[in-house]
Amino acid sequence: MNKRIIVKTTGKIIVTEAMLMLPALLVSLIYGDGDAIGFLLTIIGAGIVGVAFTRVKQSEGRMSSRDGYFIVASAWIIISLIGAIPLYIGGGFESFPSALFEIVSGFTTTGASILARPEDLGHGVLFWRSFTHWIGGMGVLVFVMMVMPMENDNSMHLVRAEVPGPTAGKLVPRMRTTSMILYGIYGIMTLVLAILLFLFGLKPFDSFCIAFGTAGTGGFAVSSAGIAGYNSLAVEMILSIFMLLFGVNFSVYHLILLKKFKEAFFDEEVRTYLGIVAVSTLAIAWNIFHYAGGLGNALRQSLFQVASIITTSGFATVDFEYWPEFSKHLLVLLMVIGACAGSTGGGMKVSRVLILVKSFFAEIRQIINPREIVTVRNNGKPVDKKTLSSTRVYAAAYMILVCVFTLVISLDGLDLTTNFTAVLSCFNNIGPGLNRVGPMANFSVYSDWVKVVLSAAMLTGRLEIFPMFLLFARSAHDR
Amino acid sequence: MNKRIIVKTTGKIIVTEAMLMLPALLVSLIYGDGDAIGFLLTIIGAGIVGVAFTRVKQSEGRMSSRDGYFIVASAWIIISLIGAIPLYIGGGFESFPSALFEIVSGFTTTGASILARPEDLGHGVLFWRSFTHWIGGMGVLVFVMMVMPMENDNSMHLVRAEVPGPTAGKLVPRMRTTSMILYGIYGIMTLVLAILLFLFGLKPFDSFCIAFGTAGTGGFAVSSAGIAGYNSLAVEMILSIFMLLFGVNFSVYHLILLKKFKEAFFDEEVRTYLGIVAVSTLAIAWNIFHYAGGLGNALRQSLFQVASIITTSGFATVDFEYWPEFSKHLLVLLMVIGACAGSTGGGMKVSRVLILVKSFFAEIRQIINPREIVTVRNNGKPVDKKTLSSTRVYAAAYMILVCVFTLVISLDGLDLTTNFTAVLSCFNNIGPGLNRVGPMANFSVYSDWVKVVLSAAMLTGRLEIFPMFLLFARSAHDR
Repeated sequence: MNKRIIVKTTGKIIVTEAMLMLPALLVSLIYGDGDAIGFLLTIIGAGIVGVAFTRVKQSEGRMSSRDGYFIVASAWIIISLIGAIPLYIGGGFESFPSALFEIVSGFTTTGASILARPEDLGHGVLFWRSFTHWIGGMGVLVFVMMVMPMENDNSMHLVRAEVPGPTAGKLVPRMRTTSMILYGIYGIMTLVLAILLFLFGLKPFDSFCIAFGTAGTGGFAVSSAGIAGYNSLAVEMILSIFMLLFGVNFSVYHLILLKKFKEAFFDEEVRTYLGIVAVSTLAIAWNIFHYAGGLGNALRQSLFQVASIITTSGFATVDFEYWPEFSKHLLVLLMVIGACAGSTGGGMKVSRVLILVKSFFAEIRQIINPREIVTVRNNGKPVDKKTLSSTRVYAAAYMILVCVFTLVISLDGLDLTTNFTAVLSCFNNIGPGLNRVGPMANFSVYSDWVKVVLSAAMLTGRLEIFPMFLLFARSAHDR
Repeated sequence: MNKRIIVKTTGKIIVTEAMLMLPALLVSLIYGDGDAIGFLLTIIGAGIVGVAFTRVKQSEGRMSSRDGYFIVASAWIIISLIGAIPLYIGGGFESFPSALFEIVSGFTTTGASILARPEDLGHGVLFWRSFTHWIGGMGVLVFVMMVMPMENDNSMHLVRAEVPGPTAGKLVPRMRTTSMILYGIYGIMTLVLAILLFLFGLKPFDSFCIAFGTAGTGGFAVSSAGIAGYNSLAVEMILSIFMLLFGVNFSVYHLILLKKFKEAFFDEEVRTYLGIVAVSTLAIAWNIFHYAGGLGNALRQSLFQVASIITTSGFATVDFEYWPEFSKHLLVLLMVIGACAGSTGGGMKVSRVLILVKSFFAEIRQIINPREIVTVRNNGKPVDKKTLSSTRVYAAAYMILVCVFTLVISLDGLDLTTNFTAVLSCFNNIGPGLNRVGPMANFSVYSDWVKVVLSAAMLTGRLEIFPMFLLFARSAHDR
């Protein structure tokens, strides 16, 4: 491994994070809740360490794909550890693992919280917590690359390790420009959302925090009442639509910008994604009809929750813990599916599920017609063998890890539904689970060591499993 | 499809089933509980229909692999429908779907029951119920082939569709002889077990029924007290050992017969299987230490339950519903893993899990060393691409189907833990689940339509997914 490049890049990442804390420092100074000191200390400390790291002399060699994975995995751990410091200093968290859980939940856009009353925190901390959703949604390393240029060759390895989904679309080649465009679309959409929320009655602070949480499909609210507290049909509808928009593959927006409308609208993943949303919304509306008191309410609650869960945002307007079992089961299934690849959402990704389902039917066709050469197609084109194989390995790894994580945290003594949905929720970066970690409950029921395990689950899920394991693997060249 | 061959073979299967009911008729006549009439009517009816079917003129063509899958899938459905008749006529089942669920549970060696008090049934029905475990454990079609010879070429297709696991070992080539040998080993082991049980105090009737349930890794007991009712350490230990023996790939016994001890004892799947059993037994014993009151009891209960669940037998000596959560979670994990390929046990099979785990680490190795050609190995030999691909597709299909089945039965309104473990239990042919379908509860909590769905789950799981779906798929040649 190229240690110089790793240290240097890590330095850039730390400096970038220190800079990203400045808005939160500003907010905390404006509101004067006393949480400014934590930010100040962290920014100074991280700034010094980060700059020192970047002073390492540039090495000759180039970054290998392995180095890229290593940097991404360690970067996410480091920014989480640093990001948790102002939360811990600011108070409101009983232990450092609690603060760490909260900020990992922020960066990974999970939105699972251990707080019963977020409103007890200072405004700066609340802002930082929501802002991490926004940074994490598009990718921390992508952001670093925009701020601190690197050679194209190096950045490619970083982005490949960080951008979710089996394909990053056609956007990968020209890295820096592309990430500028993507972050541009992302920023504008977020701003539009924040303004809309403000126009429909939210305070400016709330507007921005909720917009960050929606854009990153994170799901942190700023008060214990959550989105239900705004009690506004308009706000719920706006959020439903924007959550769904942020769950779409961003390359589709890029295509729209390029006026390639036909390609954009006929994307198979997006159509499937919207199809799943439509069917699930209707099914749940039908199922909760009596609970919601009428069709209008049922559709409203159902659409919001389906959009929130499939995009892995995790906002809640109602306590779906009390919905009929079928609706709860369907939500759990949507947790597993997740949003589109290349969006800010988590989960397994619609395109992966599509490939898996198609593989299944292809296998049946193959058995019936042994002499035919059966291919799995996506958007009309055959899926290449490497994607096919890595998707299936991903599914297997997914299954194994969900089992292992669930088994490990069961030592804390909670029931299967709670543990299983907590792991699914963290691993898919959603937020709420069922039972003891339901939408109106929080993760403080778990002990500190479980919070660390679940933090690891969130990071493993966000980085799509492999980078995290590469941290512990040894290359043939290291031996 | 070759319709003549299908009808003719189906006829042979029906006649064989009628003959297999004769011992149950005999038992019901001996005990005179009034359940003989059901068997008599079924045997006569099935005999007439079956013989009529076999009279179809032999066609010219040969059986295709597709025909093989079709026959196996439809045969399992037909024998279940016919097998349920004496149960329904005999009384004790409130509806035909209940009787169907019970007998599908028998043939698929699931052992899930809807009866609270099996002892209320007649002895003939009880015997038939347990005997279906024994027939289903080794495979119905394999049995038919032994009784009614077919050309080697045809039988190969049948066995490939029915024998569980990614590999049927080296035993496939010489079909008829091999299945004779396997059924021979199976029969002798069952007889030894029955005699041992009798020697340690069980009644002859119980000895045989429990031996059938153990050999097929089924799990039907003959009284509501189950194995706990015998209250004998010796019986529990004998059953633990025999359950584990029946969960071993039968080709290992074949190797032992051929005196190839080295090959037999170094089989990677068997070693892994025994390793999982050992680790799980110790982990659960440690976890239930205080509940069981001492190390001896803890080990005794733990070993029995681990053996019962991993082999998918499903016998219970204690209500593990009251064990600590970690132990319950571990048992659920063992449900998914299952026994060895080529054994009478169900589940995903240890060899498949091994391949999946190895694929995962191979993928990591591949990412680190992009230029290396990474292979997945089993017993030291590289796993061929076809097995690798179909194992991964199997895992994906497994995941998808467990999700779909759980979602569908959630319409009945029970909780996630109950539904999820009920589906896992049926799909993996185990027997008990958790919560409302725990070891001391039964499946009567579900409504009739769910019983039919769960019967489908049991059949799909027993035949390893694909044959059942081929029933509904159309070949290119049919269009």
